[in-house]
Amino acid sequence: MATINNNYLKLKAGYLFPEIARRVNTFAEAHPEAKIIKLGIGDVTEPLPAACRQAIIKAVEEMGDRSTFKGYGPEQGYGWLREKIAAEDFQARGCDIDASEIFISDGSKCDTGNILDIFGHDNTIAVTDPVYPVYVDTNVMAGNTGDVNEKGEYEGLVYLPITAENNFTAELPTQKVDLIYLCFPNNPTGATATKEYLQTWVDYAKANDAIILFDAAYEAFITDASLPHSIYEIEGAKDCAIEFRSFSKNAGFTGTRCALTVVPKTLKGKAADGSDVEIWKLWNRRHCTKFNGVSYIVQRGAEAVYSEEGKAQVRALIEFYLENAKIICSQLQAAGLTIYGGVNAPYVWVQTPTGLSSWDFFDKLLHNCNVVGTPGSGFGAAGEGYFRISAFNSRENVNEAMKRITEKFTV
Amino acid sequence: MATINNNYLKLKAGYLFPEIARRVNTFAEAHPEAKIIKLGIGDVTEPLPAACRQAIIKAVEEMGDRSTFKGYGPEQGYGWLREKIAAEDFQARGCDIDASEIFISDGSKCDTGNILDIFGHDNTIAVTDPVYPVYVDTNVMAGNTGDVNEKGEYEGLVYLPITAENNFTAELPTQKVDLIYLCFPNNPTGATATKEYLQTWVDYAKANDAIILFDAAYEAFITDASLPHSIYEIEGAKDCAIEFRSFSKNAGFTGTRCALTVVPKTLKGKAADGSDVEIWKLWNRRHCTKFNGVSYIVQRGAEAVYSEEGKAQVRALIEFYLENAKIICSQLQAAGLTIYGGVNAPYVWVQTPTGLSSWDFFDKLLHNCNVVGTPGSGFGAAGEGYFRISAFNSRENVNEAMKRITEKFTV
Repeated sequence: MATINNNYLKLKAGYLFPEIARRVNTFAEAHPEAKIIKLGIGDVTEPLPAACRQAIIKAVEEMGDRSTFKGYGPEQGYGWLREKIAAEDFQARGCDIDASEIFISDGSKCDTGNILDIFGHDNTIAVTDPVYPVYVDTNVMAGNTGDVNEKGEYEGLVYLPITAENNFTAELPTQKVDLIYLCFPNNPTGATATKEYLQTWVDYAKANDAIILFDAAYEAFITDASLPHSIYEIEGAKDCAIEFRSFSKNAGFTGTRCALTVVPKTLKGKAADGSDVEIWKLWNRRHCTKFNGVSYIVQRGAEAVYSEEGKAQVRALIEFYLENAKIICSQLQAAGLTIYGGVNAPYVWVQTPTGLSSWDFFDKLLHNCNVVGTPGSGFGAAGEGYFRISAFNSRENVNEAMKRITEKFTV
Repeated sequence: MATINNNYLKLKAGYLFPEIARRVNTFAEAHPEAKIIKLGIGDVTEPLPAACRQAIIKAVEEMGDRSTFKGYGPEQGYGWLREKIAAEDFQARGCDIDASEIFISDGSKCDTGNILDIFGHDNTIAVTDPVYPVYVDTNVMAGNTGDVNEKGEYEGLVYLPITAENNFTAELPTQKVDLIYLCFPNNPTGATATKEYLQTWVDYAKANDAIILFDAAYEAFITDASLPHSIYEIEGAKDCAIEFRSFSKNAGFTGTRCALTVVPKTLKGKAADGSDVEIWKLWNRRHCTKFNGVSYIVQRGAEAVYSEEGKAQVRALIEFYLENAKIICSQLQAAGLTIYGGVNAPYVWVQTPTGLSSWDFFDKLLHNCNVVGTPGSGFGAAGEGYFRISAFNSRENVNEAMKRITEKFTV
């Protein structure tokens, strides 16, 4: 009798996005004339940079000639891509990261989920609240939690609230934790972390033999020169942190798929017998056994992000979305709303007016302005009273959505 | 203190391919003039079909225009690709498989490993011996086995020998098993399965509430019209089997990355409370939570495999490799060797002459003929006394390798 992984039965149904879709569909059916603008999901909208497209096409042509055809590549990614990433994203910022510590993958969603494969089930795991749901759901699936309560919290996870009260930076846990997910610039709040703040986490992790899982998917949106782009800019982080990065949000690769994970060779975990084990070796073994590398043509596209042309095109993309965010911020403030984020991140985190829940605000925005965003409560209990608006859209749509909000939104 | 997954420490070191590389390097250093021909690893060598390249380039161009740009796609794959696969690979062969039961992924290696996520750890798991090592290693990592013994067998796994004595078709286990890995046409032996043979497995699985994990990565190499290409050609298989397929070996996608897994909605597993759970729902949840879909441009390339042009080009590729296999078979027989496979598969399974172990044969072939293959013992204890030769190479290399073997090989 084949048995299933019972932990899957603990997962609450994917409530957020189906519920958004249901409400939007109901509204659209009742108001077929309404031109709904979606600022909900964090998906890019602008073309793939020309440098990337050209590199991919060149690579496809190589695949047509047996002398330049590529079969299986190294599971960890091609050396030429790993070298460029190490040099440009890390060494250029003073981070002592070697190409061999970089693993190319097809997505940070995959990596942040798969990383749990190499850890024990007895770790105490901390997540922020609100949080990117994948961190939580993959822990539930892996059997690292108990059941869910009525607030949507899973037994066994340590939730660290991030709200306006703590400036959207989680406080150190009062209990001992072993694995800590941090994401800066943050999804969903758009908050950032200073070097001093991250140093407190690195110090905590080193003091407690904990490991930080640092998601830097939005680092390209950092405009403040004093903010760190990588956890490895922090003293000691190489001994206690894994970093996830992606080409999705900087170079528009959400549909093209390329990401990377950095696992320093100095990072250690504990085996059952108390001995230290190199985390790099475990991840390398997992990567080689359960993954076959990213498509050659896609890796060539990612490499082009580091060409002079590619860098300029990526910068233009980022500036475009950040200008959207700036427009959103100023217009929402003009509409009398309190907002956070949106400066070093593509997300604006709106505080819902007094008396309105996240879903109340969602309904008002949909009905009054025909604009769709994401209720903050969908990212966790502490997200209640907040609302995420994404800057990923055309300028025209952003302007139109903001015009409607300033003209029509009333509490 | 962050603990690791101790099951990783049970894995024996990746012995086979590093050891092959070590022996080849040692030989090459001592004989720099030798022109070594590698017929070891199962990687394609011929260009990606023109239809696929054209489709990918067209898709890359779409990514350059915001009106046709693609961001996140459906995690399960685009409907147009799933529909074509369902129609051409399954419905056309009488298999009642719907597009919604097909999950597009970036590789069968990933899928055959990841599938274990949705099953319990209390299942008894059967593998053939010899076997594709990923099936075994991913079970070790998942904690489904005990320790390894001196023969390289892991405690708790049920090994089903496949040798000349049983015509390379594993016999039904004498004990009750819950998950069964079958691969036909087989890697490494090149053996095939008749409908009657697979029916015995389906009947066993249904009688025992077991699930068959059927790897059909090499189905395109089937030339005998009486042989099934899919497990779903077998009566009752939809209630007890998952099938893995790939574009790697038919359309040369080993470096381009696209595969698929079929999970029928009628397939059930048991929850801890004894209730039936739909396996499709679990896999769909895993796929959506831990995967973000295959690159749009790559899916367009895979779709082109089903165009008239694409079909003809794929057929030509398969015929090319099968002609290589035919040459290998006839020349090895001329050299006095006993061989199996190579007719409906790109692998020829050579019985080593009496008195020669798999590694002895490897050394003789390397030293006498400068030809590299893969020792059968590397795929499992019952592979001892066999040797795998791959048909994936240029005609010139295959001819030259076989010329050397017929002229120079002596026991």
